[in-house]
Amino acid sequence: MTPPLNERIVLNSRPTGLPRPENFRLEQERAPTPADGQVLLQILYLSLDPYMRGRMDDAQSYAKPVEVGAVMEGGTVARVVASRHDGFAPGDVVLSHSGWQRYALDDGSNLRKLDPAAAPVSTALGVLGMPGFTAWAGLLQIGRPQPGETVVVAAASGAVGSAVGQIARIHGARAVGIAGGPEKCAFVRDVLGFDAVIDHRAPDFVAQLAAACPGGIDVYFENVGGKVFDAVFPLLNDFARVPVCGLISQYNELPQAAPGPDRLALLMRDMLKKSLTVRGFIQREFAALRPAFLQEAQAWIADGRLRYREDIVEGLANAPAAFVDLLQGRNFGKLVVKIAD
Amino acid sequence: MTPPLNERIVLNSRPTGLPRPENFRLEQERAPTPADGQVLLQILYLSLDPYMRGRMDDAQSYAKPVEVGAVMEGGTVARVVASRHDGFAPGDVVLSHSGWQRYALDDGSNLRKLDPAAAPVSTALGVLGMPGFTAWAGLLQIGRPQPGETVVVAAASGAVGSAVGQIARIHGARAVGIAGGPEKCAFVRDVLGFDAVIDHRAPDFVAQLAAACPGGIDVYFENVGGKVFDAVFPLLNDFARVPVCGLISQYNELPQAAPGPDRLALLMRDMLKKSLTVRGFIQREFAALRPAFLQEAQAWIADGRLRYREDIVEGLANAPAAFVDLLQGRNFGKLVVKIAD
Repeated sequence: MTPPLNERIVLNSRPTGLPRPENFRLEQERAPTPADGQVLLQILYLSLDPYMRGRMDDAQSYAKPVEVGAVMEGGTVARVVASRHDGFAPGDVVLSHSGWQRYALDDGSNLRKLDPAAAPVSTALGVLGMPGFTAWAGLLQIGRPQPGETVVVAAASGAVGSAVGQIARIHGARAVGIAGGPEKCAFVRDVLGFDAVIDHRAPDFVAQLAAACPGGIDVYFENVGGKVFDAVFPLLNDFARVPVCGLISQYNELPQAAPGPDRLALLMRDMLKKSLTVRGFIQREFAALRPAFLQEAQAWIADGRLRYREDIVEGLANAPAAFVDLLQGRNFGKLVVKIAD
Repeated sequence: MTPPLNERIVLNSRPTGLPRPENFRLEQERAPTPADGQVLLQILYLSLDPYMRGRMDDAQSYAKPVEVGAVMEGGTVARVVASRHDGFAPGDVVLSHSGWQRYALDDGSNLRKLDPAAAPVSTALGVLGMPGFTAWAGLLQIGRPQPGETVVVAAASGAVGSAVGQIARIHGARAVGIAGGPEKCAFVRDVLGFDAVIDHRAPDFVAQLAAACPGGIDVYFENVGGKVFDAVFPLLNDFARVPVCGLISQYNELPQAAPGPDRLALLMRDMLKKSLTVRGFIQREFAALRPAFLQEAQAWIADGRLRYREDIVEGLANAPAAFVDLLQGRNFGKLVVKIAD
């Protein structure tokens, strides 16, 4: 039997600023054949997430960069199509980290079987996957919202932000979301049930945010940085907590300091005066809590308290353009590339 | 009996930048007479601490500013000289918060009796008082040094810094101190026993700090800000913790942003990439732990593992000048004003 044709998208060159089409390259090859102890996976869904922008840079970070010429990294949902591994049989659907390609070998050590009857398998990349867990762990382990407190999150219609606000509400806090444009704002308010939502494109965004947070801000779940951070910071209450899981507004800036004035000393002064906590994190740090998250999140989804929206793009070849859109906030919900049925 | 003459130093005007003599005013009056339930205290020692600079500004902070015309705030050790309070008798020595003056009334609710036989009573303002507790609580509750980790602290010969480094060593960490001038550096290394000490006045200070921290920095106990922070930040390891208890280098700057470039985005990027924790705090937040601190600190002092140095200035009238010296790092050890025997 001839192995199927594999297509894979590799890092062709490192981007400067926003990635461009020439930073990616589509390659074709025959899919490999599993050796003893391996499975061959057919990728069904590829997750596109902002953190991938960091992997395209050759800079020190918590994860190694993708090498030029290597397949772009990414979480995936896949089907086992051939198995020489005792734990997996053809037809099994699994969560894997196979990257931007159609087929991949795997030794099974980091695969998790999914139950297609329990939830749409694509949710393993979103509300029940890394983004949902990022929201849950960062909010509850670092943000620790108390009943009646105000939690602010940007990209509130997105995979992480939408979960942050809803989980904050489940814990009795007020959720104030920030999103871009009337459609997303309506979704955040009417479908996700946030207490307030503000369009960051509004000319009076700063004033609107202050008005939506009359008692100040107790938890700011930071995933965007930039002008949202600037607007939030003066509103933080004493003992406010700022879990930092992303800075999407900064990812495409060149790695150098912005024009002055230098606000670093002002930031530190407020850190001290208000006894603030600012804490960068990646969800992996809390991996031991993932089963607890899954149990809670599945129950919340079942009783309608945790809603989600997926933005599904068809076809591996469209992944680069969709990723660039994501970095500019053009997606609406968790961005997933559907690669095969 | 004629009440004794009281002298008190009040805030005459709010300073701009470094306080000047005209910001203070010495007033004389007859000491008051205690009413029912009150004691009259004679102040023996006044603590001078960097936080007092913040109280001189009319800015929002965790504590109210001192009003213009009001006595300067401060922790004190005092003797009860007249009592109409069942809990206190003349001759009792207490820790109080009576401010920059010779005599004060007190209702007893915030007094703590001291045992002059157990330790020199002035230590209740230093190693066994607020500065020591600030070091202990910030280091152990926020910094959480692990055996083998590297802890860096500036003002290492001072009241807080000296305790931070020694407690870090008691917990098995490496202590790297930063101090100003050869005399203080020798004290930090030879008397306090830090693993390394660096003179921040050295022209190659940044390189020396890096050389003293070959494995990076796991805990930076921030009490100075400015150029020390700038040198430390690139050396922080993944998951490093930065308790922020003070920013003495910034206290006299005007409350405005410094010239550019703006490093705020760079700071946040490192917070994210390294999963850093930056946490402002004041020791009051941990007040419930004070008995545990006292028990540990007294034992460490008794067995020689926690050493301290006091810089005692004689006479209330010298407090303003001594305070300005403190803000410029001219003290050597915990600065205390001796007001009466």
